[in-house]
Amino acid sequence: MKESGDIAVAAVQLSSGSDVKSNVDGAIELIQEAAERGAAYIQLPEYFNYLGPAKRYPQVAEAIPGPTTIRLGEIAAARRVNIHVGSMLERSADETKCFNTSVIIGPTGEVVALYRKIHLFDIDVPGASTLRESDDIAPGEHMVVADLDGFRLGLSVCFDLRFAELYRALAVNGATVLAIPSAFNAFTGSAHWEVLVRARAIENHAYVVAAAQVGLTAEGIATHGHSMIVGPWGDVLVESQESGPDILLASIDVDEVRRRRSQIAVLELRRADLYDRDVEVEGDA
Amino acid sequence: MKESGDIAVAAVQLSSGSDVKSNVDGAIELIQEAAERGAAYIQLPEYFNYLGPAKRYPQVAEAIPGPTTIRLGEIAAARRVNIHVGSMLERSADETKCFNTSVIIGPTGEVVALYRKIHLFDIDVPGASTLRESDDIAPGEHMVVADLDGFRLGLSVCFDLRFAELYRALAVNGATVLAIPSAFNAFTGSAHWEVLVRARAIENHAYVVAAAQVGLTAEGIATHGHSMIVGPWGDVLVESQESGPDILLASIDVDEVRRRRSQIAVLELRRADLYDRDVEVEGDA
Repeated sequence: MKESGDIAVAAVQLSSGSDVKSNVDGAIELIQEAAERGAAYIQLPEYFNYLGPAKRYPQVAEAIPGPTTIRLGEIAAARRVNIHVGSMLERSADETKCFNTSVIIGPTGEVVALYRKIHLFDIDVPGASTLRESDDIAPGEHMVVADLDGFRLGLSVCFDLRFAELYRALAVNGATVLAIPSAFNAFTGSAHWEVLVRARAIENHAYVVAAAQVGLTAEGIATHGHSMIVGPWGDVLVESQESGPDILLASIDVDEVRRRRSQIAVLELRRADLYDRDVEVEGDA
Repeated sequence: MKESGDIAVAAVQLSSGSDVKSNVDGAIELIQEAAERGAAYIQLPEYFNYLGPAKRYPQVAEAIPGPTTIRLGEIAAARRVNIHVGSMLERSADETKCFNTSVIIGPTGEVVALYRKIHLFDIDVPGASTLRESDDIAPGEHMVVADLDGFRLGLSVCFDLRFAELYRALAVNGATVLAIPSAFNAFTGSAHWEVLVRARAIENHAYVVAAAQVGLTAEGIATHGHSMIVGPWGDVLVESQESGPDILLASIDVDEVRRRRSQIAVLELRRADLYDRDVEVEGDA
């Protein structure tokens, strides 16, 4: 395992629809290009192979490992890269609901880490959408970090972004890079995406890699795009302005995380002794 | 206690120095003006009455209640407003270190809530400053919310801003408005201030009132200014662009907090069952 030095990472922005084969073929083309350009870690967005009506989830869902991860594994092995499937539908043992699962395929071609989204996207925002992901998806029950060559990656998916608690737990457990593959809604995204992505980087002094879906889903919902790679001081290293597929590349250096955490030691200065204690209620009203 | 409806709140930006009398006199002038303009809650920045060398902290520190809060209490009672002393030095019982204490004086003129900063500003950032607040200040040991007329206020001070855990605990305990009175460093402020202030509002769907110091301290350290009042969707309602003292006014409506929390139920959707559990370590490196 590398201890430091620059590592090239890529965030691949997609406009996935409901045609699984065309989504996967399109993603592979961009993975090949990102690998060609030197990326050692290549992240795809949430729901990379199917962004369509939930009624087809049971047909699209696969076992992991399964056909899609095996196909991507061949590319990972041939290119000696990490391919991070931001998420795909995973068949669950009880067959009733699927998981929304983030999968990392290592340079051997094997699945090396798997995270099932723990915060499901249940919202009711007039002007944006009413959506209950939990109707069709079962939540994960574990937080996960993955040791890749040169850095420890903290895993999350899209709506998780609103819950700082998760990222703090990942950072406290050694994550120096946080992954936030997404299919963020354009309505809430324009108000919240960049602020929250940068906040997760700043408050943990960690890199953030956030590959996003862009454009209209098969159901006509606008996704926000603006895939980003952010540095541990909160600086946007690169951000997509494209309204279609795109590849973002950046060089990350874990020493920069150590340096920032020595300047402002957020992980040591937190008051873990207090946060679970009762809050005092004062005032005169 | 009011249940809803608009409430006028003010954030008073100051450029405090080491002359306590002139700091307090200047603050009172702006408090009077804010009250005249209709504010029912008036927040001053951190270290409002003394922003100078730590060696004078023991002389400046007071009991609370004490001379300064009594003087401000007369104004609060005469105007029937809440005066929130962002912070001032509080003498501690053991006399060795002071507390950096946030104080709310209610419309009766009495101290109704008191919060001692729990995260002390210990940083070492080349280009900004090396500062160890903990050398001279003892940390508080309690998180505090205060019931004021019409809203429950969550208390914090400046460097606390980097710790999302605190704001989550305040929101979970009913805070609909978060107070972040500050004397934020200009160097870190330009990189982090607005992002973090807006993130605390967005991730909790709460108002944020953040009165800040601006200009050079008595020791020549540049403070960031940019006092802000932010809505529960993360929208900046008003932000100071002044390089000196300023008064920001905004109208807040607690119903808007309820509405946003019903659209995206962040407080209910959090996975409090998971955050304290072990994080799984996967990967192949």
